[in-house]
Order: sequence, then C-alpha cells, then structure tokens
Amino acid sequence: MAGRLGIVAGGGGLPLRLIECCRAAGRDVFVLAIEGAAEPEMVRGVPHAWCRIGAAGAGLALLRENNVTELVLAGGIRRPSLLSLRPDRRAAKLFARIGYRALGDDGLLSAVVAELEREGFRVIGADQLLDGEIAREGPLGAILPNRQSEADIEHGLRIARVLGALDIGQAVIVQQGLVLGVEAIEGTDELLRRCGAIRREGPGGVLVKMQKPGQERRADQPTIGLRTVELAVETGLLGIAVEADATIVLDRLDVIRAADRAGLFVVGVRRS
Amino acid sequence: MAGRLGIVAGGGGLPLRLIECCRAAGRDVFVLAIEGAAEPEMVRGVPHAWCRIGAAGAGLALLRENNVTELVLAGGIRRPSLLSLRPDRRAAKLFARIGYRALGDDGLLSAVVAELEREGFRVIGADQLLDGEIAREGPLGAILPNRQSEADIEHGLRIARVLGALDIGQAVIVQQGLVLGVEAIEGTDELLRRCGAIRREGPGGVLVKMQKPGQERRADQPTIGLRTVELAVETGLLGIAVEADATIVLDRLDVIRAADRAGLFVVGVRRS
Repeated sequence: MAGRLGIVAGGGGLPLRLIECCRAAGRDVFVLAIEGAAEPEMVRGVPHAWCRIGAAGAGLALLRENNVTELVLAGGIRRPSLLSLRPDRRAAKLFARIGYRALGDDGLLSAVVAELEREGFRVIGADQLLDGEIAREGPLGAILPNRQSEADIEHGLRIARVLGALDIGQAVIVQQGLVLGVEAIEGTDELLRRCGAIRREGPGGVLVKMQKPGQERRADQPTIGLRTVELAVETGLLGIAVEADATIVLDRLDVIRAADRAGLFVVGVRRS
Repeated sequence: MAGRLGIVAGGGGLPLRLIECCRAAGRDVFVLAIEGAAEPEMVRGVPHAWCRIGAAGAGLALLRENNVTELVLAGGIRRPSLLSLRPDRRAAKLFARIGYRALGDDGLLSAVVAELEREGFRVIGADQLLDGEIAREGPLGAILPNRQSEADIEHGLRIARVLGALDIGQAVIVQQGLVLGVEAIEGTDELLRRCGAIRREGPGGVLVKMQKPGQERRADQPTIGLRTVELAVETGLLGIAVEADATIVLDRLDVIRAADRAGLFVVGVRRS
C-alpha cells in the first residue's frame, strides 16, 4: 500500500482546505488532530486520531500505524506552557535535545520538522499541496495601494523583519506612519480586532504580514483568508500586504472578491 | 514676579502627582491641559487652561500670558492622526520643519521639546520634580525574581531594546521564554489586559518596561504606579522589571506595599 499523506492539524481553516484539496485530487489522507487546537468538525468523515501536543511518542506511533510516509504541518497551535505540555518520554527526549532553542515559536517548529525527518517522514509545505494559492508579487485584486499606504507598507516591512528575526510574530499594523499594533502570540486576528479600537482618524492603515526570516517554511506559513479581509475591513484598514511567494491565500477568489467589493487592496510584496 | 512652572498635562496619574508635589513644595503652577487626554478632575482648583494638541500657537501664548518660564511635559497623549490634529499656523510650521521625523512617537516628542526650548522655555523632566520616585537598580519591595523570571527579564530586555530603537513602544511581556505581547500605541495597561487572556499555564510572566534608546528624557518617561501592579497581578505575572534610573514610580510606598502583599516582584534593571 502506498504511503498516505499525514496532516498534523492545528486550528484555523488551513487543515480543512488541505483535506478538501486531497479529496479533490483523490489523495488518501490521515489526520492527526491536535487536541485543543484542531476543530472537531474538520475531521468528520476523514480517517483521523486525536493527540495531545505533548504526546509525541503516541503521535509518531499513530502516523506509522496508518502508513503515513509524507507529512504536512498545518494550522496554528497555540504553544502551551511547558507545564501543561506534559511531555511523554519521546517528547521529553526532543526537548532535552533542542533545549533553549525551543523558547521561540519558530525554533520549536523547526526542531519538530527536523525530528520528524529524522524519524523517516518526508515533511512537505502546505503550499506544495495548495497549488496556485500562494500570493505572488503585486496586487491580488483590482485595488492598488496609494502613496501613503505604500509608505506604511515600507515601514511595516522594516518592523516585521525585526519582529521576525526576534521570533516574536509575523504581523504589524501601521497607520499614517504610526505603529498601531504588533503581533506576538495572540495571532493576526486578535491584532486586527484590537487595532480597530485604537485606530486614528483619517486614512486607514495597512496590515503587513511576513514570513519570519529563516522561518521553517514547512511549519506555520503566513496565511490569510476571507476572515482576514473581513477583519481588516472592520478595523478600517486600507489594505493588506503579504510576503510574495511565501504567504498562503485561502479561498483566493473569495478573498479577491471580498477585498474588491470593500475597496481594500491585497498585495504581495518582497522584503527589500 | 518669578516664573511659574508650567505643566503640559496629558492623561494618566502623573500630572496630578506633579501638581500635588508642587503644592506641597509651595511652588506656583499653571496647567496647560490637553483636550481629550488630561482628566478634568485633575485641574480642579488649579490655575489652568485647556488646549487642543494642534493649537500650538494658542498654547504658547497661554504659557507666556501666565508667566511660565519652566515647563514639564507629563502624562500620555495618544497621538492623533494628522487629519484630526488640525494644526494651527504655529503647529504647521513645526511639522513642516520636522517632517518625517514626526512619524514616530518619540521623534515628535523630541521635536516638541526642542521647539519649546527654542521659544525660550526651560524644559525639565518630571523626575526632577518627583525626587526619590525614580526606580533605582535592584528590588523595590521584598520579593525577588526567581531564575525563570530572570531569564524572562533578560529576554524582555533584548526585545524592548529593539522595540525602542524602532520607536514602537516601551513594554513587553514574556512568560517562560515566550513573548506574550508587545506594546505599540495601545499603552502598557492595555498590553497587560490582553495578555491576561492568552497567558500560559504554569509560572507567570514578567512585564519589562524600558525607556526607548535615545528617548527624549523630558517627555513620555516610562512610568509605573499602583494600577500597573494591580493589572500585573490580574494578568498572573510574577513581576515587573523597569529600567533603573529612568522609570518614574508613582505612589512608591503604595506600589511596594501592594506588590509585597500580592507576592509580585518589582525590580529596577539596567540594559545589558
């Protein structure tokens, strides 16, 4: 029997999108759903098992028992504290090896990917399965950023680069040159929500979302979707800038339609 | 008649504290209260006038008419958008001169201080009037940070230094090596509130608050008070680290008493 694709599924819409893609392509999948992160509805009717984030040994065994050879890590996993992690022996061994590199979010994910490959799995990026849904350079829809927004994007890029280098977060919101908010562990949706309350009068700001420099591409790829556009509109933003060739756009056509209707630009940019 | 002390008052508890200090010292004050920022109760029974943030010409005239020669800038002023600023001719002249330096918060404040000195006022720091209320190095109360907290403080210092250099904010919250939140324009109280909702299980985090590198000392000095301690306790933090010799501690004795009672450390640290 040919190896199945394993989907290690966290929260958000990305895992379901992958399942749908594989179903459409006739590809057999097995979902390892992470407790407290993945949404129960997602795995309905799909071969799956649930697993604690700290139960690495059980998780590896489940993947093997289900003939998984190729793996994709998809969806957000809010990092638990070491205490609530309750690592099993296998997870404890991993943590003992990576030590303080586990402190940052990305350090942990990179180590997990390396460990999975050491265990003989081929780990691929979600973008490899979602052909054509990666943001390219330039505008996605009909709206273009104006000069003020371009300046805000430039400023946001500078800041996102530093935030990423410190392994803090991927996103920042800039309005008229002012940094309204910076994403850490709360995620982009929460960042958007709170910036709605503190935005300034006048022309709205921009959300800039970039991959962390040196980020493990196969884990926690920057992602936007319809919800991001809706929240950006509610926050009074003029647009969204994402890293070209690195950001997954879920429901691309819906995103473009909603953005165009709201007069919001969505643009792929490169780090300068 | 000897020149009075002018207090340009924004929000928070610092302006009232200055007024009380001056009253206790028998020093004559005139308060220029910034509309939308200063609290109306603060100026009750004190010689004062209200002024829009954009009405620089009127503000300067008010200070002169009231024999102000020495000035202190105190309290937070949420930066308005350029549109809602509606600068008068005097303010427009200032903005024309400082141009893009005004984009960051600190650039604007430094320029305002320089401009006030050019107009012949002596601008002093709030700390010069609040003798003995500046945090020194070491613990303020009876509680000391443990080893995990010391590591979190170290990590927070690294991040605060970069945030400050980018003129983003003064504060960061770190729990078990993870950056829970980063302050931008929303301020430290809001940062504390939102991190309460996303904190991890296990030992709590620390708030690290530092002066921005190269920050104009006489404007927007980092300040903590009783409210900061109360919010830190609600957020489940283990303690607060502030920059030694740079941070104003309002109600020092009350802060120490409340922190000791809650088992929270408050410590003055130096940037390494």
